[in-house]
Amino acid sequence: MLTRIDHVGIACHDLDAKIAFYESTFGLTVASIEVNESQGVREAMLHVSDGPAGSSYVQLLEPLGPDTPVGRFLERRGEGVHHVGYGVANVTQALATLASTGIRLIDQRPRHGSMGASIAFLHPSDVGGVLTELVQAAQA
Amino acid sequence: MLTRIDHVGIACHDLDAKIAFYESTFGLTVASIEVNESQGVREAMLHVSDGPAGSSYVQLLEPLGPDTPVGRFLERRGEGVHHVGYGVANVTQALATLASTGIRLIDQRPRHGSMGASIAFLHPSDVGGVLTELVQAAQA
Repeated sequence: MLTRIDHVGIACHDLDAKIAFYESTFGLTVASIEVNESQGVREAMLHVSDGPAGSSYVQLLEPLGPDTPVGRFLERRGEGVHHVGYGVANVTQALATLASTGIRLIDQRPRHGSMGASIAFLHPSDVGGVLTELVQAAQA
Repeated sequence: MLTRIDHVGIACHDLDAKIAFYESTFGLTVASIEVNESQGVREAMLHVSDGPAGSSYVQLLEPLGPDTPVGRFLERRGEGVHHVGYGVANVTQALATLASTGIRLIDQRPRHGSMGASIAFLHPSDVGGVLTELVQAAQA
């Protein structure tokens, strides 16, 4: 079902500073910077590599305010890995398959993610404490 | 410097149960199961994808006892993402470059990782709260 590690989502306080850090320290390059109002974040996708099933990124997430999922995460845990996003060929099909195994879905239907992707989150309690995202990349 | 996301390292209480979960739920396949006494873990690499710079894995980590890094992580945070491993062409060179930028190294020199890789960890406080591992894969 999983075709690649699409991204590691990392919560931070200062997106611009963290972008500059990943650029200068690790040589990553910015593929997109977007505001996702519905998720309450400003986020950057930093390109790591390309592969046959698509690209992999470091995703940096800055909350739009304290009363957002990433804002509450930062308050509770501090900066660090917030979630892991895996590529899937068809996110709607994947959700149906996973729901049938009893995994609780945070998103019953796909919603809008970075760079035009269709995404959905699975409940971390059902995936060993890992907030897990499925990512169907936009058509090239 | 970073050539791919080599793996996401996930701490768990019961390695065999978690392997079975990732196999049956997500269709991943076991590439290796090893005991690393020096790191105090039993660990499995579950293959996700291949790419031009190497493969990507989910790494599952079960502590050999409570007084180990992963044992203390589980006590403090519970199950979840423990670290992120990125591929590099040459881990010794990468460490020298990063040290020159002021990043604190947990490992001054590479040590033995999963599947014959040479690995080294960077201090999470200097990488935005993310325990970051560099991975030079074994020669194929």
